[in-house]
Amino acid sequence: MKRGEMSQQAWRILVVNGPNLNMLGLREAHLYGALTLEDVEQLCRQRAEGLGASLAFMQSNHEGVLVDRIQQAREDADLVIINPAAYTHTSVAIRDALLAADKPVIEVHISNIHKREPFRHHSYVSDIAVGQVVGLGVAGYGYAIEAGVAYLNAQQQD
Amino acid sequence: MKRGEMSQQAWRILVVNGPNLNMLGLREAHLYGALTLEDVEQLCRQRAEGLGASLAFMQSNHEGVLVDRIQQAREDADLVIINPAAYTHTSVAIRDALLAADKPVIEVHISNIHKREPFRHHSYVSDIAVGQVVGLGVAGYGYAIEAGVAYLNAQQQD
Amino acid sequence: MKRGEMSQQAWRILVVNGPNLNMLGLREAHLYGALTLEDVEQLCRQRAEGLGASLAFMQSNHEGVLVDRIQQAREDADLVIINPAAYTHTSVAIRDALLAADKPVIEVHISNIHKREPFRHHSYVSDIAVGQVVGLGVAGYGYAIEAGVAYLNAQQQD
Amino acid sequence: MKRGEMSQQAWRILVVNGPNLNMLGLREAHLYGALTLEDVEQLCRQRAEGLGASLAFMQSNHEGVLVDRIQQAREDADLVIINPAAYTHTSVAIRDALLAADKPVIEVHISNIHKREPFRHHSYVSDIAVGQVVGLGVAGYGYAIEAGVAYLNAQQQD
Amino acid sequence: MKRGEMSQQAWRILVVNGPNLNMLGLREAHLYGALTLEDVEQLCRQRAEGLGASLAFMQSNHEGVLVDRIQQAREDADLVIINPAAYTHTSVAIRDALLAADKPVIEVHISNIHKREPFRHHSYVSDIAVGQVVGLGVAGYGYAIEAGVAYLNAQQQD
Amino acid sequence: MKRGEMSQQAWRILVVNGPNLNMLGLREAHLYGALTLEDVEQLCRQRAEGLGASLAFMQSNHEGVLVDRIQQAREDADLVIINPAAYTHTSVAIRDALLAADKPVIEVHISNIHKREPFRHHSYVSDIAVGQVVGLGVAGYGYAIEAGVAYLNAQQQD
Amino acid sequence: MKRGEMSQQAWRILVVNGPNLNMLGLREAHLYGALTLEDVEQLCRQRAEGLGASLAFMQSNHEGVLVDRIQQAREDADLVIINPAAYTHTSVAIRDALLAADKPVIEVHISNIHKREPFRHHSYVSDIAVGQVVGLGVAGYGYAIEAGVAYLNAQQQD
Amino acid sequence: MKRGEMSQQAWRILVVNGPNLNMLGLREAHLYGALTLEDVEQLCRQRAEGLGASLAFMQSNHEGVLVDRIQQAREDADLVIINPAAYTHTSVAIRDALLAADKPVIEVHISNIHKREPFRHHSYVSDIAVGQVVGLGVAGYGYAIEAGVAYLNAQQQD
Amino acid sequence: MKRGEMSQQAWRILVVNGPNLNMLGLREAHLYGALTLEDVEQLCRQRAEGLGASLAFMQSNHEGVLVDRIQQAREDADLVIINPAAYTHTSVAIRDALLAADKPVIEVHISNIHKREPFRHHSYVSDIAVGQVVGLGVAGYGYAIEAGVAYLNAQQQD
Amino acid sequence: MKRGEMSQQAWRILVVNGPNLNMLGLREAHLYGALTLEDVEQLCRQRAEGLGASLAFMQSNHEGVLVDRIQQAREDADLVIINPAAYTHTSVAIRDALLAADKPVIEVHISNIHKREPFRHHSYVSDIAVGQVVGLGVAGYGYAIEAGVAYLNAQQQD
Amino acid sequence: MKRGEMSQQAWRILVVNGPNLNMLGLREAHLYGALTLEDVEQLCRQRAEGLGASLAFMQSNHEGVLVDRIQQAREDADLVIINPAAYTHTSVAIRDALLAADKPVIEVHISNIHKREPFRHHSYVSDIAVGQVVGLGVAGYGYAIEAGVAYLNAQQQD
Amino acid sequence: MKRGEMSQQAWRILVVNGPNLNMLGLREAHLYGALTLEDVEQLCRQRAEGLGASLAFMQSNHEGVLVDRIQQAREDADLVIINPAAYTHTSVAIRDALLAADKPVIEVHISNIHKREPFRHHSYVSDIAVGQVVGLGVAGYGYAIEAGVAYLNAQQQD
Repeated sequence: MKRGEMSQQAWRILVVNGPNLNMLGLREAHLYGALTLEDVEQLCRQRAEGLGASLAFMQSNHEGVLVDRIQQAREDADLVIINPAAYTHTSVAIRDALLAADKPVIEVHISNIHKREPFRHHSYVSDIAVGQVVGLGVAGYGYAIEAGVAYLNAQQQD
Repeated sequence: MKRGEMSQQAWRILVVNGPNLNMLGLREAHLYGALTLEDVEQLCRQRAEGLGASLAFMQSNHEGVLVDRIQQAREDADLVIINPAAYTHTSVAIRDALLAADKPVIEVHISNIHKREPFRHHSYVSDIAVGQVVGLGVAGYGYAIEAGVAYLNAQQQD
Repeated sequence: MKRGEMSQQAWRILVVNGPNLNMLGLREAHLYGALTLEDVEQLCRQRAEGLGASLAFMQSNHEGVLVDRIQQAREDADLVIINPAAYTHTSVAIRDALLAADKPVIEVHISNIHKREPFRHHSYVSDIAVGQVVGLGVAGYGYAIEAGVAYLNAQQQD
Repeated sequence: MKRGEMSQQAWRILVVNGPNLNMLGLREAHLYGALTLEDVEQLCRQRAEGLGASLAFMQSNHEGVLVDRIQQAREDADLVIINPAAYTHTSVAIRDALLAADKPVIEVHISNIHKREPFRHHSYVSDIAVGQVVGLGVAGYGYAIEAGVAYLNAQQQD
Repeated sequence: MKRGEMSQQAWRILVVNGPNLNMLGLREAHLYGALTLEDVEQLCRQRAEGLGASLAFMQSNHEGVLVDRIQQAREDADLVIINPAAYTHTSVAIRDALLAADKPVIEVHISNIHKREPFRHHSYVSDIAVGQVVGLGVAGYGYAIEAGVAYLNAQQQD
Repeated sequence: MKRGEMSQQAWRILVVNGPNLNMLGLREAHLYGALTLEDVEQLCRQRAEGLGASLAFMQSNHEGVLVDRIQQAREDADLVIINPAAYTHTSVAIRDALLAADKPVIEVHISNIHKREPFRHHSYVSDIAVGQVVGLGVAGYGYAIEAGVAYLNAQQQD
Repeated sequence: MKRGEMSQQAWRILVVNGPNLNMLGLREAHLYGALTLEDVEQLCRQRAEGLGASLAFMQSNHEGVLVDRIQQAREDADLVIINPAAYTHTSVAIRDALLAADKPVIEVHISNIHKREPFRHHSYVSDIAVGQVVGLGVAGYGYAIEAGVAYLNAQQQD
Repeated sequence: MKRGEMSQQAWRILVVNGPNLNMLGLREAHLYGALTLEDVEQLCRQRAEGLGASLAFMQSNHEGVLVDRIQQAREDADLVIINPAAYTHTSVAIRDALLAADKPVIEVHISNIHKREPFRHHSYVSDIAVGQVVGLGVAGYGYAIEAGVAYLNAQQQD
Repeated sequence: MKRGEMSQQAWRILVVNGPNLNMLGLREAHLYGALTLEDVEQLCRQRAEGLGASLAFMQSNHEGVLVDRIQQAREDADLVIINPAAYTHTSVAIRDALLAADKPVIEVHISNIHKREPFRHHSYVSDIAVGQVVGLGVAGYGYAIEAGVAYLNAQQQD
Repeated sequence: MKRGEMSQQAWRILVVNGPNLNMLGLREAHLYGALTLEDVEQLCRQRAEGLGASLAFMQSNHEGVLVDRIQQAREDADLVIINPAAYTHTSVAIRDALLAADKPVIEVHISNIHKREPFRHHSYVSDIAVGQVVGLGVAGYGYAIEAGVAYLNAQQQD
Repeated sequence: MKRGEMSQQAWRILVVNGPNLNMLGLREAHLYGALTLEDVEQLCRQRAEGLGASLAFMQSNHEGVLVDRIQQAREDADLVIINPAAYTHTSVAIRDALLAADKPVIEVHISNIHKREPFRHHSYVSDIAVGQVVGLGVAGYGYAIEAGVAYLNAQQQD
Repeated sequence: MKRGEMSQQAWRILVVNGPNLNMLGLREAHLYGALTLEDVEQLCRQRAEGLGASLAFMQSNHEGVLVDRIQQAREDADLVIINPAAYTHTSVAIRDALLAADKPVIEVHISNIHKREPFRHHSYVSDIAVGQVVGLGVAGYGYAIEAGVAYLNAQQQD
């Protein structure tokens, strides 16, 4: 297993949220539901704890702040769960930060981006991620955590 | 709640698998893993049972057989989980059958189609589905079932 | 007149219906109206009889079954009326079967495909057909039969 | 029923013909047949009378004249049958006039435009019309009148 | 020779000028030179007379007027020289009128349209014309007349 | 200052309205509002008078009539305000007439064309105009007049 | 009226300026004129005061800072005037922030973006704005404020 | 050599024919020649026997049947010769079946598809095949068999 | 006048012919006519002499030879008439040689390239030439010489 | 039979090889195999002799030399086998030379060009050739010769 | 010389590095080599000193920070060397800042962006830069400095 | 190190110049500067000598001659510096020759091709080269030589 040598330790999960997700539950409920980002963090913590993993959770509207944090994952995380929101479709810098961090990535979108404007159908993250969970609401974060930990465990066995 | 009046009964889930998925586990293990379609069915049954739902599971290489079966879901299912495989990218008929069946749909792909040939990036199902689970291996079926039942429950409450 | 030597006999009309048309009247009434495929068949029989023509009427969700039947038209029909439904946009095989059958073709669509998704604007049949009737409901079948018989009569006179 | 309050009165049909249709029967008989525009008007009158409807029939080579006449339909017609000929492919002004007139529209083309140059495959009218009759010769006007009256009758019943 | 049976008579040439050519010499001299449309007519008359041909010369800013006049060429001209100006790029109606007139056509542009905006690079006339003279100033009309008469003479001999 | 030598005189403004704007206030009020073209003319006259400018105001459904009128602006106007309506998207002839008139142009659209069909997103006038006012209702005419007069005054000072 | 319940109070206007607008008047005067951003603010304040509205005015080169500020408009503004400058063409995040703020938006560009590079012709804001003022210099801000207040007043009356 | 361990045995060749090839010799002789599919089978058998190989030969109009048969090649063939006919251009399912079968593939087309409609220029099989024989008539099957056996022999030597 | 200082001397014309024009009159007479390249040279010499100009005439199938010869025109020609034939559509090197030679260029095509394959509609020469003569047969060379000499004379007067 | 009157004589075959094929066997063996161009010539001679045909074989890196040689085939060959190599994708001149030579053409590519860069997927020769042999190694030359001679024999019989 | 009046002083060079370049040498060594950004700064300082120039060197992951710094170059630099990294392909704001700074720019990329994903082939900086150095590793910074100083010296002499 | 076994010997550099570069310094000085190709050769020789390398330098307007020379580099060079000029954008043959020569390549352009016509933005060489130097004048050759030798030395060490 290339990443994370300390297999005795718990897996370290970083959850990254892109621009405007701080407004979750406060706007456009028909698209995103009524839960807030605090609810999402709560959900993620419970799921991670249940799997014996630790969790870091952050959000920013600033592309550069997101890049800074993702780079740091090279040192302090084994898995990145990312909902890049609007930056999904425009940020090569986030893609490059994920490549530089060199950790497995799972992409999450709360709403079904394929039902929305055509410019939301392309993602700069999809082809470098392990996979995507799209349109399944905030529960998608939970599935991503579960699948990511399974992926890490499987990698460890190889 | 428009679909499924008999809310006392268990939700009825139909899992539809498209062409070549009968070869699962027998071919291209680097893309799809070592589990067979029987394993997937097993996994789906357990997850459905755990949620108190009933399950129908089928696979066919024939577009027409898939259309026939999906149409039937109008009468005998509350939720369709579909991995249309190659027909994802070419079948308007399956899309139309899903529209005719008029049940919530969740799309599953075992491998990450965004890492593959460009013609696999477009899906005729995505914009009429609730959401997608992509690239998370056969576990994706389980997430889809869980999310689908949650969706049905939420719809029922409205 | 190249086709159908037996001009004393009644013209033989084949009406071919593509996938999901068996659901007609049972689904999406706002798009397709409340009549069923049995009603369409009835309408076609009456119109054909009124013109002294015989009628074969079929539907299938299977591309291969449609191809098989259209090929047979080479021997047992003088005119093909076809509503290829979803296969309009994806089936080169049906186009080739119509070319192989070598009979005049009239294309019918119940709803106005130009009001729908862009992928429904292209037809693999249009440029090899005599003409199209689009968006005029099931009455379009009747117009197609009338126009087709007129076309056959005109061809016979040349 | 929104349009035409005076349901006791006969339906009023306007038939609009675009540029060069005054040459009908005089040119390119292999594409358009040997009938003249007078023959078409005759055919339309007979069909309208048979359905108890009144008919106005006009042709112009001038886009502006066509726009003027179509606008007037807001006041003096219940249905517009239009063969926009060359303006099918280039005139947003006619499209806008049809929208402003706010009456149901049926589009007719004598020849099969899908067999001709690619620039004839797009119509600025199709997606705002009830439907189209294409390639069935001048008989297409008759079908359009019949279908249009049926449409008006059905709307009246709602 | 299919067109113009009366070979003893002089060839009859129609010169058609599209929108804004009435401004010639009055505007944008760097593009079009200092000669006026009257000068062009003069030049055309001299060249036609020198070849024993008669000449009709017209200009309009109205697409419909141009279509009307071109249709008439079916009866009163053997050759059409056309500078469709802006309608080169937008008018299918003029194309259709030229097809309906069924006379050989030579296309003239005073300035080099290939040096200008991309939307001026496509012509609806070019592929139905005998040929084009582009960018050679008003002298291009003279070359077109000369080439057109040579073409008519050659056709007559076949 | 190249245009309009007679700086002592009032600026002369031409307001040009394209096809179907004569229907303003009579149709599609959700798009264009309830004011009529007479109201627009009134608004323009008041604004022009307030700025000490004279105003000519016209509308036509005929592209050729619009071209004729715009050409005349070369002699009788210092500024052209134009709402080309449907011809925005199709008329190179109007573009060329504006170039021939050689006066500053401001483009106005009552509704927001960027919210409408994709073919309404391109304008043949935008890149030769000083600027655009889009989607601000009929008040946009007023802003255009005000900005145009400011532009003329600024040009005069250079 | 959905937005801004406190109709007795003055309307609150937020003016947002994107990257490099802090250089206004200091660079490329042929494109943007000689006024500085302070002049623009002055102009906006005067116009707002004249209409009895309050004004907040900001500029940033940081996409994230712009997103943060726009989100806040949900609470502290009734109208957003935005000149997104370079982010017009690249920022989905600003679009999403405007959607989240859920206030009417008017887009302003000082220069005529349609005369510049093709990548400046597309805006991620245009189709979610009320309208645009383009190429009319800094006066465009004034028109936008005037139009925005008129819009708010009209909405209030509904 | 990865495929077919039993090198002492004869190579096993599967020849697969797509839709409408059962009409060979009966239709469009100018495109496909006068030989029937029985003749092709005969030709293939002789060529295979001459090379000491065994042959299975099939045709179907049903995409699903073709997929079923190709999958089976994983067990019972060393080489697949395929003329996918119309499915060449539309079937990702056949491509996936060929990938699943994991045998060398040679693609044959009787007519020159590059002389036909543009949609026949793209093949979903070409880039996963060893090579193609196109436009050389039914003899192409023979060349494909010969080349395929040579390929198998060469692979065996590696 | 920048080019050719020695105005007392005759103008020096270079006529350049691209690949396969040596076959003129020997092949595809329906496209190019029955005259040979020697006939063209004869025609050019007579026309040049009649205008008091000297003529160099060459043909090559080799792009490099054509480039070499065109470069030389910088020293020994005042005008280049070029029929680049197939290299029209593919050679940037010939375009660059024409730019390097820095002489006025007139482009000639014997047949109407707009009636042929789409890849023949684009020319790398058109936008750097004075103009084109297309489809007027070999007489086009004569018109080009006449127009070119007129152009040189006009330039000399400036 | 139009071509080659002297049916008693042996068929004359010209084999043309494009740029870099002189490096065959010396470079990129994984793409092209280990045989040299001399080996290919040997193979072609044997196959031609076995069919009683004569053979001319040439290679050049110079487009002009290839054009010259192909033109000559009009006089000294009955069949052209061509592997245009890199010129396949860029040379209209070779296409035109093949048209001028007016002999049946068979196109050969040693490697499977559909597995390589997209710019190698288009051929300027394919639609004017009888057919192609692609990706079958140097044996493809032999199949082309065999198929070409069969084609000539069949043509002779007509 | 327009920029930098103080020719006696040393040239002032600003080196700007975009997102993720702080990870240089720490990630993806196969693409970017083993040197760190500190090494690059060292290299730049030595080269600048050797040329008697002063150097400012910065990196940021934040687009806004980069824009801020580049604007400042208007006052404190004579030359900008920029490796915009991921922002090369997405940032119009950086392009506009470079235009506002109004200093000569040289673009550097350490790896060969033309060997990577298609979205890395377009640069928003290239057409406003003096030139590019691509794929030559960190040495490219040195070449850019050398070329930039030479450019400044040459400009000074004009 | 695969290339150049004789590490004791000097590196052998081949500099290849494409069409029209023999005109350097004689034409379009604003684009290319005033130095001639002899000056470039001189510069290259000095730089090569300074690095202890030997140099071959050539130019041709003939694609075939360039291909011939590049192939030879397989035997007599360790590094190819190429300025393919116009062939950059059109020659697959030169690309293939570079692949066949199998030596590291550095691409040089004297002017900034990204500031010129769009067809000059694509290069058939870029993705098979080590890197590019663009727009830095003839000094770019020197940087390429320096970088190329550094590359060879680094390769040798591996």
